[in-house]
Order: sequence, then C-alpha cells, then structure tokens
Amino acid sequence: MSNGAKDDSEKKTEITRRQLFKGAVGAGIMASTGTMALNLMGGKAEAADRSIPKTWDETYDVVVIGSGFAGFAAAIEARNAGAEVVIIEKMPLHGGNSIINGGDFAAAGTKLQQENGVKDSPELMLQDMLKAGAYLNHIELAKAVAYQSKDALEWSETYLGAKFPRLNFHGGHSVKRAHQTENASGSGLLNKMLSKSKELGIKLKTRTKMVRFVVDSNERFIGIEVRNNFTFPNENSGKTAFIRARKAVVLSSGGFSNDVVLRQVHDPRLNEKFDSTNQPGATGEALLAACIAGAMDVQMDWIQLGPWTSPDEKGFGYVPLFCERLVGYGPMIYPKTGKRFFKETGNRKERADAIILLGEPVIILGDSYAVNKQVFPGALEKGMANGAIKKFDTLEELAKNYKIPVAPFKEEIAKWNSYVENKKDPDFGCMIFPDSKPTVTGPFYASRLWPRVHHTMGGLVINKNAQVIGFNMKPIKGLYAAGEVTGGVHGAVRLGSVAMADCVVFGRIAGKNAAKEV
Amino acid sequence: MSNGAKDDSEKKTEITRRQLFKGAVGAGIMASTGTMALNLMGGKAEAADRSIPKTWDETYDVVVIGSGFAGFAAAIEARNAGAEVVIIEKMPLHGGNSIINGGDFAAAGTKLQQENGVKDSPELMLQDMLKAGAYLNHIELAKAVAYQSKDALEWSETYLGAKFPRLNFHGGHSVKRAHQTENASGSGLLNKMLSKSKELGIKLKTRTKMVRFVVDSNERFIGIEVRNNFTFPNENSGKTAFIRARKAVVLSSGGFSNDVVLRQVHDPRLNEKFDSTNQPGATGEALLAACIAGAMDVQMDWIQLGPWTSPDEKGFGYVPLFCERLVGYGPMIYPKTGKRFFKETGNRKERADAIILLGEPVIILGDSYAVNKQVFPGALEKGMANGAIKKFDTLEELAKNYKIPVAPFKEEIAKWNSYVENKKDPDFGCMIFPDSKPTVTGPFYASRLWPRVHHTMGGLVINKNAQVIGFNMKPIKGLYAAGEVTGGVHGAVRLGSVAMADCVVFGRIAGKNAAKEV
Repeated sequence: MSNGAKDDSEKKTEITRRQLFKGAVGAGIMASTGTMALNLMGGKAEAADRSIPKTWDETYDVVVIGSGFAGFAAAIEARNAGAEVVIIEKMPLHGGNSIINGGDFAAAGTKLQQENGVKDSPELMLQDMLKAGAYLNHIELAKAVAYQSKDALEWSETYLGAKFPRLNFHGGHSVKRAHQTENASGSGLLNKMLSKSKELGIKLKTRTKMVRFVVDSNERFIGIEVRNNFTFPNENSGKTAFIRARKAVVLSSGGFSNDVVLRQVHDPRLNEKFDSTNQPGATGEALLAACIAGAMDVQMDWIQLGPWTSPDEKGFGYVPLFCERLVGYGPMIYPKTGKRFFKETGNRKERADAIILLGEPVIILGDSYAVNKQVFPGALEKGMANGAIKKFDTLEELAKNYKIPVAPFKEEIAKWNSYVENKKDPDFGCMIFPDSKPTVTGPFYASRLWPRVHHTMGGLVINKNAQVIGFNMKPIKGLYAAGEVTGGVHGAVRLGSVAMADCVVFGRIAGKNAAKEV
Repeated sequence: MSNGAKDDSEKKTEITRRQLFKGAVGAGIMASTGTMALNLMGGKAEAADRSIPKTWDETYDVVVIGSGFAGFAAAIEARNAGAEVVIIEKMPLHGGNSIINGGDFAAAGTKLQQENGVKDSPELMLQDMLKAGAYLNHIELAKAVAYQSKDALEWSETYLGAKFPRLNFHGGHSVKRAHQTENASGSGLLNKMLSKSKELGIKLKTRTKMVRFVVDSNERFIGIEVRNNFTFPNENSGKTAFIRARKAVVLSSGGFSNDVVLRQVHDPRLNEKFDSTNQPGATGEALLAACIAGAMDVQMDWIQLGPWTSPDEKGFGYVPLFCERLVGYGPMIYPKTGKRFFKETGNRKERADAIILLGEPVIILGDSYAVNKQVFPGALEKGMANGAIKKFDTLEELAKNYKIPVAPFKEEIAKWNSYVENKKDPDFGCMIFPDSKPTVTGPFYASRLWPRVHHTMGGLVINKNAQVIGFNMKPIKGLYAAGEVTGGVHGAVRLGSVAMADCVVFGRIAGKNAAKEV
C-alpha cells in the first residue's frame, strides 16, 4: 500500500488544471494526471478495478456514504423501515458542511409562517426555485423538495426534536420561509439526527473513506471498498476493507467546492486562487467513483460563488455580513484604477463574475454613517479583530493602504456621492436606498473581497425516487443518492436555505427506498 | 436480435423525459426507461457489455466514427501519417451537419482578411471566444482553435482544394473573420475532403452504427461493436460486427441537438416541442457510449437555441433570414396579449429564453418599408412560398390571422412607433436603428417564431492533444475525440463560424495523434 505514491499525493496542491490539460502526449501529462488521479481516487485504487472481493469485512442492509443532513435522514428512514444500517464518513468528525451551516431550512406553508402572517405555498416555493434555477431544474425533483418541505421540517421537529423558532428571509424567495434552528447552526438539526441514529442502533464509522463501488455482473451495486482509519487528506492512509450492502448503497457525500481539479474541469476559472466556504472534505472523489461505475452527472458547471467573502479571513468569515449590509450604501472599488466597476446591488453570480474578470480582489467601503447604521456590531468587531475589516480616518489613508491611486479614487467617490444625492446611478444602475447618504463621514471602513466557492449545483442524475440514473438512461440497481452530490434539484442557482430542505426530503426518500430494494 | 424490442423502439418519439423521471419504483419507470435505453443504446446492446470479441470482422489502425469535418480531417491526417483508416457513418449519406451548414470558417490573420483591410489576430479571436463562452471555455482548447485556425483554413485551401472567396461577419466576433465556401455551404469543404480521402484510400462505411466501445483489461480502447447495414432510425436494423483499431479510435460523431431525451436531462425545457436545425442523425448515443466506457462529459447543459426559427417550416428555413434583418425595425409580439415582451435586438440566448418562458410561438412583423429595405428578396419569396412568412394588407388582418387581440395590439404598435420616432425604447431597451421608421406602411409581413435547437456546446472532455479524459482524470488510452462531440472549446456559447475551425483544427490533431498511438 505504501508504494511511493505518497510523495506524489503530497504534491497535489501544486497541481492545477492548467497543468493537466497542457501536457504533450506522453510522459509530461501522464505524470501530472497520474498524480491527479491519485489525488482524486485515493492512492492505490485503480479506476478500472471492477473486482468483487471473495469475502466482505462487514455486511449491512444499507450502506450510507456521508454523514450530513442527507446521510443521516437516509440512515434513520432506512433503519425505521427495518434495515441494518451503517454510515461511513471519511473525516474524523461527522456532519460535513451540514454541521457548520447557518441552520436555515426552507419550508412552505408551515405553522411558523402562519403565526407570522406569511402566506406561502409549495407551488410558490417551486416557482421561486425554478426562476432562480433558470428553469434548468429537474422539475420533478424541485417539486418534491417544495411540496415535501413542510413535512420534512415537521419530521425534524416532532420526530427528531429539533427546534426552528426563527423565520428568516433569503434573496430570491417570494416570502420569508427560512426556518432557523435554535442555535443558528445546522448542528441544531444534525446533532438531533446523531442522537436519534444512536438510539436506533445505526453504526457511524468516521475516518472511513469510500474508494470505489463494487458492482456485480448484473450491474447491481452490492457494496463498497473503503479505507478504515483514513486520515484526511492523506490518500494513502488507512487500511483497505470491503463493506457489503445487502440491499443498497446511499451516496450522500456532498458537493465538491473544495476540489480544485474537478471544479476547474467544469468551470476553468475556479483555480487554486479561490478558497471555499466549505469544510475541507468537500471534494468530489465519491461522485467521480459513481460516474466511473456508470452513474450520469448533470449541470456540474453551475458552481455557486459568494462575492462577499474576503481573502483576509478563512471560511465564511465576517466580511459577508459587512459587505451585504453595505451594498447600496457604499461603493465597490477596483484598486488598480480607483474606480467602481459593477452594480453593487447586482446578484451573487453577476458580482462574482465581474470580480473574477478583474482577476484580483476589490474593495467594499462605507463611511461611519453607513457602517454604524447597517452593519451588525458583532460582525464589525470580529471582522476588525481578525484584520479582514479595516478602519481609516481618511479616504487618502484608505487608498494608500490598498494601493489605490488617490486622485482618481477621490474623483470616483465624489461622483458616487452625487449619485447618492440624486438617488440614481447612471453608470451601473446600482440601487441607492432612500436612507443612503454620501460617503463623507470618517472614519471609513473597508474590506477586500474575493469570491469563494460556496455550493455545487451539479451532480448525479436521480429520479424522484432518489434512484441514480446511469449513462444508459436506466436507474442503477442498488444505488440511491441525495443532497449536494446530486444535480438537477436547483438547476442553475440554489436559493439560500433550500439545501437543508433538499437534503432532508431526498435523504428520507433515499433511505426509505434503499431499505425496500430487492 | 429481433426480440420484440422493436415495438418499443418505435414508440420512442412518444417518450419524454417527464415520463422518464416521474416513474415510481418498479414496473412503471423500468418500462419507460427500458424503452429509453433501447432508443439511446440501440436495441440489443446492454450498457454493461464489456466483452471482447474472440474474432474481429475488420481491422484498421485508426477507426473514425462520424463523417463530418472533424472525422474527415482526422482520417486524412491519420492516413498521411501512415495509418490504415476507416470512417464509419450511421446515416446513409456522409457529411452529417457539416454538409448542410452555411460553410463559414472562422480564421484569424488570413490573406483574405488582409486583402479586405481587416486587422485580426489569433489572440483577438481567442478573446472573442472566451467572452462569448462566459469564460467557461477550456482555455488551452480555445487557444488551439484560435491560433491554428489560419493554418487549418490554408490546409483546407491548398491541400484539399476548397475555396473560400467571401468574408462574412458573425455576431460576437470583433471583426469579419468568417471565410465562406464558394457554394455558401459546408459541402464546399466536405466534398473536397471526401475526394481526398478516396484518393488516399480511406474506406468510408455508411449505414454503419457504433454500438459500444470495446475496452481491454488495461482500459485501452481497442475497437468498436457496430451494426452494419443499419437503417436509421431503426435501432434494431443491421447486423452486429466488430471492428478492431490497432492504434486508436477517433470519436467525431457530432452533437445531440436531435436527441430529445438526452438534451432534456441537461436542459429540461427542451422537450419534443422543440425542433432542431440539425440533420436527424444528430443524436447522442455515441457520446453516451463513451461515458459508459469511462469518458468524462462537461458543460452538457449549454445547448444553443436559435430564436429566429419558425414552427411553420422545417430545418433552418427562411424565417431566420427574415427575422434577423427585421429586429430593430419591427416589433416582436406575444399573440396572447398583443404586447411586446422582450428586447428584439437581445442576443440569441436571451431571446430564446424569453420565448420559451412564454411557452408558445411569438410573432415578428415588419411593414413594407422595413421588409423591402432589410430582407433579402430570395428569402422573403421562399418563406412566403412555403407559408412561413405571411403578407397582410392591414394590421387588423394580421392580428386576426394570429388570434392577437386587436385593440391592445394596435395600442402597442402605436407605442412602438413613438419609440421608433424618438429612437429610444424605454420598455425593453431595443436598439432602434437610425434608418428605422414607424410600422405604418402596408402591406405587413409576419412570421411565427419558436426557438430551435442549433448546437450543443458540451461533450467529452479532451486535452489539447485531443485525447479523451476519463472520470479518473487520466487520458484514456486509444481514444481521441474532435468536433461537436467534445466540450470545453466554446464554453457557454459557440460563436457562429467557429464550429468549422474547431472541427478542422481538432480533427487534424486527433488524426495525427491517433496514428502515433502505441
């Protein structure tokens, strides 16, 4: 197992898609893609390996890959349908992105909405999803999420015991329909799922990485090859073992926001200069393993970027909470020219695309009036403490710090201020809010912005039974999938708070059907 | 071979993606997807078939699948590199879409451009391609096309003997760089390729359909299973045979604009209500067969629609030549309301998306002044002869014919006319050209418009050597691809006239490298 490949795999962060695709026939490209393959496929395993083990190390009815919302929902439903269930998780901790997200769960027509006087319906939620998705959504899937969202939320509350006391609004939704967990984190639901799964006798194996699917001669998925005691991201760590699935495998391994090579295949702009808001394990090797075994992928090139993140802090950070409250109150500046370059109130995708085109971080700034009025104090303090938000007494000082040419910058601010006074931006059509004021009152606050990869809309094709569809257009026997590893639910753009609904709705469907597979 | 499946395959036009994905677990969906699979994979063949034939019916060094520009370019270069070459083509006639296209070949920095005073460069062409492609292009591929376009054109002229006397402009290009064949058709090049291939002793087998790739235990592509004497679209016709490729297979089977099921997986809007400008054989089974055998697909959801086609004539037709000359001179009307609904001068994608959202054909109209000034007489006459363009003495008559409510329609025309007089459209921002006049002078001409699928940008991932990349991120041994079956060259949007350049550039690369494969 230790075959010298380790040295290669340790170089993986240096390998870019550019290198992958520029090679000549022969040694150059073979070497670099060889490394790439090791990176993606896990050390020893060969993509072409189609062998069936003579003996299995462990056997269950249903094997669930990944321990986020979708994986736990599947495991719990499969167990309640009588199956013996294991969840495997490659990371040392369960929960994936689910345990670090904001805990907002979109659901339509709920009790909390009624109590808050919000009129909503599954059909309205569906229409919002389709519009955001540029009508690329697989309609039956989007419909399932919208129409079963209320039931999924109620199941999370009454059966699992999670609490969702707060109703939030997210852009692109027609009404407030994001039901937020008590602790404003996905852990508010995920930990309830963990407790329930323990109570039900579901086994959770962390540090267990899926390497390939085992498929029998009838093209039925009958189990997986794993590495036990895996230490992420060392692809050669751990020990090979085989886990049999008597009934079915459920793939709920999440998205690939942190997989630089894979995301660059589908959106070549997203090189190593782009960080991600996701947990480090959000890579695509399980998705690719499914494709190697015959599963069809879809809409992989729709990768959502947050335009509001800063290169000066990690993960999601505090700058998004600074930036998103300032747009429409302060200008966004390209440091090289000192000028504005895009509509500050444009949507996520438009703004991210515009920043990427410039090729370097931009600046968002606001004066004391705007910042004190708009920005949540906690976010401001924390962003300043970690250095991602900076305070300047004068605009000259601000310009100097970010190497902005002072004269054109000051001209631009004067122009912006005239637009604010006229409440109209003839240059880019930015919305200027009624209570917005010219940027004149020091001190001034600013942050650098560089988009970060946030969500991957594409993934495996499934039908409304959560069966994975193969490139032969048939449902694959013994393979179900749910959550971010699937594609089609969201189409081009996922709306905020719909991921939780998607994971719980389709996780439950996948678990129920996996337990019934014959 | 005749196993009753024929009845199913004959039903294929009735099967929609909706049916595919709405099924319940069990008989319902299995039946419909079973039919789907037969449709896509060709009767008998099972996707899972990985057997290697004991004997081969025919053997060549290089086997080329598809007889368009890319296939012939590959075959000719492989032959000139010393390989024994066969081209297989499933249709009764060679040429695919290449032989029916308009014969426009984008090339940068050519003699004809110099003679016409056009300043151009490969870098400018590359930048145009990237901008149109929303920077999703695989840059090394786009670069290869832009930088080798001149050489590919010269090869077509000097080596093959094709003539490109005319220089045309296409939207999205910075300069005139479309070199049009003498007969204003792709056949002007394709037939020269055919002659040369005969001269070189390249075998062309029409009515020969590729069913699956044969892959050895080292994951090397060593040949293909075909059906000889295949009669499109009868998937069960013909007789199974095996063709060995000593060196490599080149896949140049074109796009999938006419494959309703496959295109609906990637863009669910594009159901059977959408016709295509392509030849009937533009289906995706060869692309899918490659994916089943391990090839990776990319950007399949970028499917180009022409917003200028009419449901009242077949193929490309004459209405595009009517519509595209009228935009900016006459309004586009939604018959249900009698009102305009979108910027007439918006780009192809914007207009097509807007029409699709309405869900039914719209009307483009012009008065005698606009039509006589703008529309090429031949196109007008031919469109009128086939009934797709109609003439009316009055606007009332026009409204009545298309069931447009008369009063709101006449109000809308009056409003449009006021915009034309002011040279400004405050409703949708349509460009109003300086010589545009109000729509008042009878007779009036009109056509119904409904978008038609024109080009599929996505396809197999290749590197700049035209090697196909697998889901394991490695180049596949023995498999090359070129032309519309590949993805990444064009990114989100293919510019007019770049397809020919792409096919010839990458066809040649694929052929040369296939002949060298060891």
